[in-house]
Amino acid sequence: MALKLYFAPGACSFVPHALLENSGQPFEAVLVKLHKGEQKQPAFTAVNPRAQVPVLVDGEQAITQILAIVQHLDAKFPDQQFLPRQQLARTRVLETLAWMNNTVHPTFTHVFMPYKFAESPQAQAELKAFNAKVYAGLLAEIEAMAQKAAAAGQPFLGGDHFGPLDAYALTLLRWGGYAKIDPTGYTALWAHVQKIAGLPGLQRAMARERLELNVYQP
Amino acid sequence: MALKLYFAPGACSFVPHALLENSGQPFEAVLVKLHKGEQKQPAFTAVNPRAQVPVLVDGEQAITQILAIVQHLDAKFPDQQFLPRQQLARTRVLETLAWMNNTVHPTFTHVFMPYKFAESPQAQAELKAFNAKVYAGLLAEIEAMAQKAAAAGQPFLGGDHFGPLDAYALTLLRWGGYAKIDPTGYTALWAHVQKIAGLPGLQRAMARERLELNVYQP
Repeated sequence: MALKLYFAPGACSFVPHALLENSGQPFEAVLVKLHKGEQKQPAFTAVNPRAQVPVLVDGEQAITQILAIVQHLDAKFPDQQFLPRQQLARTRVLETLAWMNNTVHPTFTHVFMPYKFAESPQAQAELKAFNAKVYAGLLAEIEAMAQKAAAAGQPFLGGDHFGPLDAYALTLLRWGGYAKIDPTGYTALWAHVQKIAGLPGLQRAMARERLELNVYQP
Repeated sequence: MALKLYFAPGACSFVPHALLENSGQPFEAVLVKLHKGEQKQPAFTAVNPRAQVPVLVDGEQAITQILAIVQHLDAKFPDQQFLPRQQLARTRVLETLAWMNNTVHPTFTHVFMPYKFAESPQAQAELKAFNAKVYAGLLAEIEAMAQKAAAAGQPFLGGDHFGPLDAYALTLLRWGGYAKIDPTGYTALWAHVQKIAGLPGLQRAMARERLELNVYQP
């Protein structure tokens, strides 16, 4: 049975979406319109009661969480090298992937959806402003990773193969635009993200999601 | 060279601490006193610039992030079965571990360290109150997992072996006490946590951290 990926345009579901498109594996992409609240409707909550994308459906199994989906895909398609085979390199990719997922990503959530953390307009405004600054600092940490990879002549953030760190970095830098952070200010990261956006699989994924790479408006 | 684990009493570093103690593998436990700000002092930031525990030092490598540490230990000691060997069961454990780490854990951070997200006393008070309620709901999701495991006669949350989900569940339920949530109200989870706290390795880890299981005060 073909794989099915539930995604929302521009969301972190871009990570498995980009991996699958870049791998050339057949899969069905299912659009979930978050702005229409489709993630809260029974058709979707039957798949994921937590009302979030991404969800990867493999046969009878609906799998959530980027860390789990990526490793499930890696185990299913070992030749793709979504994650490095060598143990220490693998640990390092998982370390950065976990940090992107539990620190960088949630920091942006405070800017984009502050109502998830506080009710009053005052507190929400404060959350947006405070965390936009924190977010800019976290993107600078990813910029340092891109600089280090470039200096080492390493083509991708996780090593020799396109992988989840590249796709997540693209997503997180893109989101920066919505937090009034100019992505082009992160020179090495912006160059890296532009480069990977040119991969044919990424072009297909971005076309399906109708993504612009730079959404920053001064 | 022996493994070294940097931990802070009661912090999420309890997850690898409990795994290592329960496995019987030799390791050196290094206490980091967060209340004295030791995590921000050069001796520690040289090990982890992000100033957080846990850190696992394996030879020359300092590894951060629970998801990475657990999988590194699993690869190093496959006989311990820290994670299930069967692929789908493994994916399911990683899925729940990622959710505990990127959703449940950060929700508690809003209650315990609201200053990480907002500056004003008003916003911080609102974050504490709002997220304590959210946290109680997330613990109810873990209670449902404990109920399901008990109903299936499954001894641990991840299957037949003590693992990271059990240690994280203990930590998260304990933290509930600081958020004025009575842990005994989650009947199946409280029973599970009391049971695993009785394992000899867990007793050693809890003694080293001087942990009481129930810190709730009405």
